[in-house]
Amino acid sequence: MAYTPSMTRLIQAFSKLPGIGEKTAARLAFHLLRAERGVADDLANALRALKDQTRLCGTCHGLTETDPCVICANGERAPDVICVVEEPADLIAIERSRGFRGRYHVLQGALSPLDGVGPRDIHLDRLVKRAADGTVREVILATNFTVEGEATAHYVGELLRQRGLKVTRIARGLPVGGELEHVDSGTLAQAVVERREV
Amino acid sequence: MAYTPSMTRLIQAFSKLPGIGEKTAARLAFHLLRAERGVADDLANALRALKDQTRLCGTCHGLTETDPCVICANGERAPDVICVVEEPADLIAIERSRGFRGRYHVLQGALSPLDGVGPRDIHLDRLVKRAADGTVREVILATNFTVEGEATAHYVGELLRQRGLKVTRIARGLPVGGELEHVDSGTLAQAVVERREV
Repeated sequence: MAYTPSMTRLIQAFSKLPGIGEKTAARLAFHLLRAERGVADDLANALRALKDQTRLCGTCHGLTETDPCVICANGERAPDVICVVEEPADLIAIERSRGFRGRYHVLQGALSPLDGVGPRDIHLDRLVKRAADGTVREVILATNFTVEGEATAHYVGELLRQRGLKVTRIARGLPVGGELEHVDSGTLAQAVVERREV
Repeated sequence: MAYTPSMTRLIQAFSKLPGIGEKTAARLAFHLLRAERGVADDLANALRALKDQTRLCGTCHGLTETDPCVICANGERAPDVICVVEEPADLIAIERSRGFRGRYHVLQGALSPLDGVGPRDIHLDRLVKRAADGTVREVILATNFTVEGEATAHYVGELLRQRGLKVTRIARGLPVGGELEHVDSGTLAQAVVERREV
């Protein structure tokens, strides 16, 4: 005897989420048990709605509830600059920074030969086709600065340059407010190599 | 523009849970979006089932799906020893320890005058009535060793002793495997005070 069957079931369902172990799952379940019914219902309804309503934009492959998504449908956003990101979360991070007013292309992944993820898996043909439509002037590569993200940027860059497109990569360097003393040496070395004239 | 409306809704619902901030909530939502539909559905169904099926046992006030609960209905568990705990989670912790084969009484809280929680709020009359039914021989107080838990144990102890019942309190001391060097001084002082003959 431990939990009731319905408690056990909820704890198991929570435990399947990333970063949530059995102890945290039990704490969440007890919280929901004590909380007003509405709290659990809101979460249950939101879970269903997410899967029912959110899908991928047919143009940029970002998350959306309408097709095309609000960014692709926005005439005020520059149609000639495409920012390539790995995941929808990356798109949101860039939108939050308010530093970009063009369009996006979400790869939904990154090249990773060791995991068996090749160019076809992240549908690079769709990106190439879109970038070569005559409207696009510049493609900004905003994949992560990880092994996979760098490999993807390199591969995509080659692919698009061959087609005569201007391809850029977002900058690496010290963070805003960063102090030389506290930044890791890899970033600092890169910041020196990628120095720019002022 | 940031998340889709259904993503925002799920992130808000997750954020209402204890220990889950907006960043963690977003990570969970993205995980569910990528995961198979079944993962979100299982969680949604488990949330509903918890509220539909789990209720309190009419005898011990622990969590149950049947009334009386499996512990109260188990004839092999000593009916003459009642272990008083604050929360259902405490009952489960004691059951896990396999050190107790009697019955329980879950207060669903602890006395806390500062928060306006008095004897009536944790229904001490029900405990007194049950303990004084003629069957019960001993009441073990297993409330927490916090200010509230100690106050509750003290108050309940007085109440039951007045009715001629044997009342005990679970032991305080060093944990199993504990080293004197690393235990906090409050616990160590208490372990010396509560030393027992060997």
